[in-house]
Parts: sequence; C-alpha cells; structure tokens
Amino acid sequence: MSRWEEAVQAVQLPDETAAEQMRERIGQLTKPPGSLGRLETLAVDMAAVQGTIDLHVRPPAVLVFAGDHGVTAENVSAYDASLTRLMLENFTRGGAAVNVLASEIGASVTVYDIGCAGAPVAGTEQIRIRRGTGNIRVEAAMTKEECSEALDAGCDAVKRAVEGGAAVIIPGEMGIGNTTAAAAVSAKLLDLSARDVTGVGTGLSGEDLRHKEAVVEDAVKRSDKTDPSAVIQDLGGLEIAAMTGAVLEAAASRKVILVDGFIATTAALAAVHMAPWVRPFLFFGHQSEEAGHRALLDALDADPILSLGMRLGEGSGAVCAFPVLRMAARIPREMAVFSDLGL
Amino acid sequence: MSRWEEAVQAVQLPDETAAEQMRERIGQLTKPPGSLGRLETLAVDMAAVQGTIDLHVRPPAVLVFAGDHGVTAENVSAYDASLTRLMLENFTRGGAAVNVLASEIGASVTVYDIGCAGAPVAGTEQIRIRRGTGNIRVEAAMTKEECSEALDAGCDAVKRAVEGGAAVIIPGEMGIGNTTAAAAVSAKLLDLSARDVTGVGTGLSGEDLRHKEAVVEDAVKRSDKTDPSAVIQDLGGLEIAAMTGAVLEAAASRKVILVDGFIATTAALAAVHMAPWVRPFLFFGHQSEEAGHRALLDALDADPILSLGMRLGEGSGAVCAFPVLRMAARIPREMAVFSDLGL
Repeated sequence: MSRWEEAVQAVQLPDETAAEQMRERIGQLTKPPGSLGRLETLAVDMAAVQGTIDLHVRPPAVLVFAGDHGVTAENVSAYDASLTRLMLENFTRGGAAVNVLASEIGASVTVYDIGCAGAPVAGTEQIRIRRGTGNIRVEAAMTKEECSEALDAGCDAVKRAVEGGAAVIIPGEMGIGNTTAAAAVSAKLLDLSARDVTGVGTGLSGEDLRHKEAVVEDAVKRSDKTDPSAVIQDLGGLEIAAMTGAVLEAAASRKVILVDGFIATTAALAAVHMAPWVRPFLFFGHQSEEAGHRALLDALDADPILSLGMRLGEGSGAVCAFPVLRMAARIPREMAVFSDLGL
Repeated sequence: MSRWEEAVQAVQLPDETAAEQMRERIGQLTKPPGSLGRLETLAVDMAAVQGTIDLHVRPPAVLVFAGDHGVTAENVSAYDASLTRLMLENFTRGGAAVNVLASEIGASVTVYDIGCAGAPVAGTEQIRIRRGTGNIRVEAAMTKEECSEALDAGCDAVKRAVEGGAAVIIPGEMGIGNTTAAAAVSAKLLDLSARDVTGVGTGLSGEDLRHKEAVVEDAVKRSDKTDPSAVIQDLGGLEIAAMTGAVLEAAASRKVILVDGFIATTAALAAVHMAPWVRPFLFFGHQSEEAGHRALLDALDADPILSLGMRLGEGSGAVCAFPVLRMAARIPREMAVFSDLGL
C-alpha cells in the first residue's frame, strides 16, 4: 500500500469527549454565553482534533507545493508559465506574500518542487516527479503512478513537518495554470459546469475568461474518471495531488489543517472524497474571491474564518486566519472562570 | 476650550499623497493586481492616516473605559450591575477575554474607571466623574459638565497612550447596562426606532428584550437633544463619552483607531457627528452579533475586517482584527517587487 493509501486508512474520528469538555470549560469563562462566537466553536472543533482542551497551535508550518501545467499552452493565464520558477526564487529569498505573512505568525515556509518545468531552484525541496503536467484539454495530466508519487510526496512533507513539531499544517501552492486544473477537478468531483468553477485566476477578463472556461469544459468532457485520485491524475496537477496527500497525512496525524483558497480547497475536497472522515480536521481560513471557491465551500459545508477579498494562493489567506485560531486556542486556557470572581 | 473641543478642531484631512504612493508601491509587488484584497486597501487607508508608506502599527494600546448605568434599575440586563466591579477586578488580574486577546497582539490594557458605582478597584485608573449615570428612562445620564469631563478623560487617556508610544488605539468598554445607553444614543443620532438598535446585550430574550426596547424608546422620547455631545450627555454613559473623546483625540493625533462592536461604534458615530473628518481614521474591527451594529456600520459606510459572531465588548473584537492590520502594514514594506525578479 502506498503512503497516501495508508493515510486514508489511518484517519480516525474526532474526539467528541474532548469537544464536550471544551464546551463545559467555555461555559465557565467570565463572559456571557456564546459571546465569543467563532472563537468558541473553533476551540471546540480544535479540541476534537487534538483530543484535549489544552490546545496548542504553535508552530504552524506552511508547505508550498509547486508545479507547472501543460494546459498553459492553451493561454489560460494572465502570466507566462515561466513565472512559476521566478516565484520559487522569490519564495526562497523571502519576498513573496506568504513569506511576509508567515513571518508574522511564526511559521516556517518550505517549498516543494513537485513538478516544475524550469531549472531547479536552490533552496526548494526537489521532489520533482515530472516536468509539468500534460495539457489536460487533450491528455491526462499525469500517469496513475506519477499521481500516486505526488500524493505520497505530500504525505512525506507533512510527516517531516510533524516530526519537526508542527502543530498546524497550512498547505499552499504555486503553479501558473493551476486554477484551470483545479476548476476541472472541482467540476468533475462535484458535477458542476465549467462556468460554476472557472474564475479570473491571476487576472483574466472578458474573452480570455470565456476561453479559459471552454478549456475547462473540454478537459472535463474528455475525462471519464470518477474516482477522486483518478480525477486528480487525469485533470489535476502535481502540486494539487501533493496537497491532497498532505491533507490526508495531516488528518491521519490528528493535526489542525488550515485550508487556503480555491486550489487548496480543491485538494481538501478530493481528500474528503477519498476519506470523508478527514472533514473534521479541516479549518477553512478564508473565502477567496476566485469564482468557484464558494461552491467548494458549500459542498464541504464550510464557513471560512475570514473574508478579505483575497485570491493569491500560496497559502496566504489561510496564514491570515491563523491568529484567530491562536486566539481561540488561548481563550479557554487563560481566561478566568466565574468561580474566580466569587460567583 | 475643553480638551475634546480642541481635538475636534485639530483633526486634519488624511494624506492622499501617501495613499497614492502606497497604491503605486502595492502595484509593484510580486503578486497579481488586487489579489491581496483587503490587505491592500487597509495599507492604503493606513498610509493616509500615518502620512507615510512606512507603516507602523506596534504597539497597539487597548483602553478599557468602565462605567455604571442608572438604567439598570429598569432590569435591562441579564447580569446584575455589581458585575461591572467584579469584571474590573478580573481585568486587573488578566482574566478577561480582552486580556488574553491583547496579550496575543502585544497590546497593553489600561482600565479607566470613568464612572463606576462600586468601591474603586486597585489597578484601575481612577478618573471617576460620578458614581454611575442617571436612569436615562426618566432623567439625564449626566450633566453637561460631567459629559465634558468624561470626553476630556478619553482625550487624556489617548494622550498618555500616544506619549507611551502607542501606534494604534483600541477603545474598549465595560459597563452593565451600556448596550441600553448605546442603543438610545444611536437611535437619537440616526433617527432610528428603538427596535432597530436594541439587541440582546449580555443575553436577553423574549419578554426581557421587548422590555429593554420599551426602555430605550422611553429614553429617546424623553430626550429633546440633537447635538451629539448633548445626546451623549442625556442618553449615553460616562464610558461612552470617554470613548468618544478617545476617538477624537486619536484622530487629532493621526493614529489608526481600531473600533470594536456596538458600544465602541456608537462612540465613533458620535465622534463623526461632532467632526466628520474623523471618519478616515476609523478602522472597523468586526461585525458584532449585537443587533443594531449593522445599522451603525451602514451609517458610517463601514466594512468591518472580521465577522466572527462576537458580541462581548471590552475591545475584544477589535483586538482580534489587529493581526490583519499588522499584516497589511508589513506587506508593502517587506514583499519583493517585480523588478527584483528581473521583470
């Protein structure tokens, strides 16, 4: 059995006893019942994941998975495919948005080159499975074996992070063309139209956006796959597969998974389709501006923590939500209870 | 001229040149245009306040203003009025929600007893102007002189914080009964019905909520005031007056003001009615669950940063939003620009 298949088997149910203990604890805190809103429900949900009311969310680890996409040959992005490599250099120099944001929350950023097409970038973890995917409009993104390797690479990345002490896993991504791949995967998994899930990505408009939609539609029509790992293999991306593996492994390790925007949620959706019991381990960081994200969130019955109009990827929106998780974790441990006031 | 009247005169227009420089800077950052959403607009708005693109938001200062309310004699709260004092003790021991949350953002918490009724609490700043307000259903909350003193006390608190290096001012409050007073002030300032602005406060329901609404309606009917400071004097609270003064002084000092929920927004609204040019200095931390907050935000054309279902007060919701401001401040200073990538 491959490592990702082991992870699918290993995911366990959340700890409802710890959740109930957390509800009781929160009921004693010096505040009106329910008045901390989402901070309270997040604390309960994290207790179920961590199996304790003594929550710990530090340090968080941002794992950025990068890959290129053959479908960029169809002119589906506002940026040239070569930007993937330049952004990898940017990540390693600390100049990308996710670097700055991760620094604010004390998170490490590790960049995994799962399948970029350009020359390897020093400072990235080289787990390259192939040089970019096939053009999903006309061919499979990757072989079944390559997809399995990419899923395993995501598992391995999380294992390393957990061994390094990570308490929260934040999967991020970089890959020019990957909103096209994610749209195709989402449409297939949820039986939605290309229009429902195709968005502006890095900044398309008008005719270009309609063209992208047509490409997604062609890809979805071409594919006869229904099994979630096969859908990723046929329509996804190497970094999307790795993110799916990361989600599976993090859930198997009972870690809080902080999910970013459209691409990350596509990977999370695929993981839930493989193993529905992954769902309680998922915390959705933000509502992205990318069209289609809402449909994914609805399918996952997810209410994102933030809604800041972001649509960058890299894990950036999820990172912005981390301070709320951290506050939710501290409140039940550090606030006084009414009996402390003599009540 | 009193200190708050000086502050009204001293508020200046935001720096549109700095805002434009920030827009240019953000346009060069290594990301698709607009993809950081609210982080970008917050950075532009903060540049206008601080008059520079080199934004600094640390340290933030939480100023909790506390006062008691004669209207609690009308049974408008789920908690006994004596809880105000117990909560002041809780603040000084670090056990309240705002203490825990402020610790997370590196903010000091200073508690000003502007008009509590119980015995003074050690560790709070004693600026007590009177022992609680009058019962606004049947009489003025305070005299004109007392209101002016309370407004000045808020100015002084901000002056101290600014002298201590505070870069962001977060006004908070504690006072059993103060959602009733804030509802009356809001209804009068915006010509709304009691029903539009009366909410559950610390947790009313059914008959009790309708009773509170009737009390607010009686108070608003009793008052013939229209000038904003007179409305606060007649219908408000000592802590609400102090928060209004704090907002005025912080705007005069060109500080970013991070506004909390229903009570704090009532004070901010009063300040804007006194001096409309205060508005650009206001950053709204969160959408509170307290009914009426939405109407205030709409009147101020405000789009709060967070929506976490909170309704606690103390400044707690605003504190939760601070990390987003901090991230927005760091992004333009620390991210790479496209020319760094050779583009």
